[in-house]
Amino acid sequence: MEEKSEIVKIKTSRINKNNLLSSKFELRNVMIEIARKFGTPIYLLYEDEILKSCSLFIEVLNKNFGSRAMPLYACKALSCKYLCKLLEKQGFGLDVSSGGELFTSEMSKFPMRRVMFHGNNKTKDEIEYAIDLGVYRIVVDNLFELKNIMSISEQKKKNVDILVRIKPDVDAFTHKSIKTGGKGSKFGMSFDELIDVIDEIKKSSYVKLKGLHAHIGSQIFDLKSFEELSEIMIGFYINLIKKFDLQLEDLNLGGGFGVRYLNEGEEFNLKKCISNVSYIIKKRCKEYGIEIPFMYFEPGRSIVAKAGVTLYTVGCVKKNEENIQVIVDGSMNDNPRFALYGARYLIENISKRNVNVDRRVVCVSGRCCESGDIISPDCLIKDPEVGDVLAVYCTGAYNFSMSSNYNKFRKPPVVLVKGDGTCGEIVRRQTYDDMISCEV
Amino acid sequence: MEEKSEIVKIKTSRINKNNLLSSKFELRNVMIEIARKFGTPIYLLYEDEILKSCSLFIEVLNKNFGSRAMPLYACKALSCKYLCKLLEKQGFGLDVSSGGELFTSEMSKFPMRRVMFHGNNKTKDEIEYAIDLGVYRIVVDNLFELKNIMSISEQKKKNVDILVRIKPDVDAFTHKSIKTGGKGSKFGMSFDELIDVIDEIKKSSYVKLKGLHAHIGSQIFDLKSFEELSEIMIGFYINLIKKFDLQLEDLNLGGGFGVRYLNEGEEFNLKKCISNVSYIIKKRCKEYGIEIPFMYFEPGRSIVAKAGVTLYTVGCVKKNEENIQVIVDGSMNDNPRFALYGARYLIENISKRNVNVDRRVVCVSGRCCESGDIISPDCLIKDPEVGDVLAVYCTGAYNFSMSSNYNKFRKPPVVLVKGDGTCGEIVRRQTYDDMISCEV
Repeated sequence: MEEKSEIVKIKTSRINKNNLLSSKFELRNVMIEIARKFGTPIYLLYEDEILKSCSLFIEVLNKNFGSRAMPLYACKALSCKYLCKLLEKQGFGLDVSSGGELFTSEMSKFPMRRVMFHGNNKTKDEIEYAIDLGVYRIVVDNLFELKNIMSISEQKKKNVDILVRIKPDVDAFTHKSIKTGGKGSKFGMSFDELIDVIDEIKKSSYVKLKGLHAHIGSQIFDLKSFEELSEIMIGFYINLIKKFDLQLEDLNLGGGFGVRYLNEGEEFNLKKCISNVSYIIKKRCKEYGIEIPFMYFEPGRSIVAKAGVTLYTVGCVKKNEENIQVIVDGSMNDNPRFALYGARYLIENISKRNVNVDRRVVCVSGRCCESGDIISPDCLIKDPEVGDVLAVYCTGAYNFSMSSNYNKFRKPPVVLVKGDGTCGEIVRRQTYDDMISCEV
Repeated sequence: MEEKSEIVKIKTSRINKNNLLSSKFELRNVMIEIARKFGTPIYLLYEDEILKSCSLFIEVLNKNFGSRAMPLYACKALSCKYLCKLLEKQGFGLDVSSGGELFTSEMSKFPMRRVMFHGNNKTKDEIEYAIDLGVYRIVVDNLFELKNIMSISEQKKKNVDILVRIKPDVDAFTHKSIKTGGKGSKFGMSFDELIDVIDEIKKSSYVKLKGLHAHIGSQIFDLKSFEELSEIMIGFYINLIKKFDLQLEDLNLGGGFGVRYLNEGEEFNLKKCISNVSYIIKKRCKEYGIEIPFMYFEPGRSIVAKAGVTLYTVGCVKKNEENIQVIVDGSMNDNPRFALYGARYLIENISKRNVNVDRRVVCVSGRCCESGDIISPDCLIKDPEVGDVLAVYCTGAYNFSMSSNYNKFRKPPVVLVKGDGTCGEIVRRQTYDDMISCEV
């Protein structure tokens, strides 16, 4: 019975390198073909879209900071070896937030001099692992963690360069579940607590403070939040150099750059954001006569979200007096973002692209035994029938990475589609055996 | 670096068969010992508590329906081979809702004559698998699915006995995400739609309608919902026999029996619930001169929730002007129920059980890079310090089963504690390798 996932490379002749993402028609043709070849549900990832996002980031940082800046991809958005390798080639570093993400980067042979290790409660095992691998910076969240790092570096007689995560108390305009920089936040420390940390660091011959880090949340569109963050953080940075006589080099302002999921509102203006940040940083550094810090930014969603599309097949359509239920072969397992945040997506019935049928507002639900298992409660799509393939756009971030085996459904594969029209699985579909492999 | 999970059996001499669950003091002693031996985060499962819940269910059904009833354990709450075997011995059947749950029951050698196959969008592969295995009943959700079952049974020349899932339109008083029986529900069909289904079934020489199924939701405490459900369903059942001349045998009223997570409110009165249901069913059957159907109920949460405890170690305590953040080594990965439903738990600082310290209202947060990663926003526990072990009670259901690898944290092991004081892993801790095993 167990359906073995076939690892195939298909050459889709209808697409060519230059118009893969510019021509919607071609793109949708490829999707149907891939759905047929690999089955659904399935995550697609368009390499060219990732490359485009990477280029923009590199270009904007270069323009504003020259060679004194590096983007670190936030692995929590989507982490796999293929992606690590791809990002390495684009000049990115990695923001890893667990031993598992660190392991994935190690397995992809990612250069550790470009890895920063994050997390608000790193275990001793993870700290040891990071120090053994020689990650570039550990971003220290709190005093307890610092003490663990100090004792492990002592035992191993290894130097460890750290940044410290600060609560800047900037109110980012976003969903409360993804706001991370306020006073009551579980992340980081206040500037006052930082003073104790600095005293503690002085006791260590191995741990060196290299700079500061902050991250105010996710899905932020308001440029003012980033400007405010920059003012506060460069203020702290200068303060530490001037008043505490510290030799700092790095300033990491995190990520949170908004991604437009629907055809509504404006795109996040990355160029303007980084240009404004750069203006503030440079102005203050000049004012106080200090060197401009090496700048880090941590985009995750903005690198991969738009590159992702999830394909589902409609298994059942139920019209009742309250709504039209369109039930697909995926679920909140592969996309828990509506269940968690009420997140919305653009959905298209790609099987009806050339068919002249009315559009209807439908509820796209999954196959989990749970009413909250909804992909979109009210999307407008061409009247769907059983067997139609639906494309849910902008699912490259926080879909695969948050997926579960609830109801013991297998996780879908991730199929990479390249600009030259070839594609193949970078993560295969789980088997039933995979799901019980840890049972004793 | 990769920490290999050790599979050990520890004999805890301090507990004995008779007082494992009766003596709180002894129980907490064992928890600390297990946390030390197996590490945290960890899911514990008390076998005696499961056995107690099973006994109660069997006893109540026997009393009300004699040998004409069977409880089917709802695997979605927690599914693993060990549990399947244990439930088989208690006289339970299984409610499986996917190929994966079916596979787990097959691997545990569960007798298929006690398995019902559910799901609101079964794939053709799954239907084929269920028919090959010879599951006792397939619970048909909709007409599209019925057609697939008919064509597959035709190809295989195999008889398939089905129930049909009905929307009874009973408004269960529970969280909207877990309400499943209303008109706009994605599950099942209305009585009118059932008539079309009956016409369709008549065309098949292999598919036989044996009865009806309904499930109105989860975490229901109100006995009236079950009484209303019984009245409606026995009405449909009698109607089909009398007016459509069908030979029905089975009535499956699903589950949803409430579990008290906190020390508040009353326990769900299962005895009274089933007794009232039985009264209604018997009365109507007598009135219309038909045989009492074979009754099925599908408890999931009420069998395993209270048997489960999750243990975490405190890694960091942050006191700020807004709250006290107590950060543990687990996360919304191993318990997503606060993030999804705002679910509450009773939490205890078991390391401070004999220590005279004040209790404080704290926010227990996890180690995910997400502010919504909360286990409990405001629980009252003895003032916690770094290194303390916290026990989160009533986590046996919908914790392991909904767990994810978000942030690439490994899933915790499930350790079974038996009444004789022995314990061992029934599911081992994931390794880093497990998490990337599907990467191509």
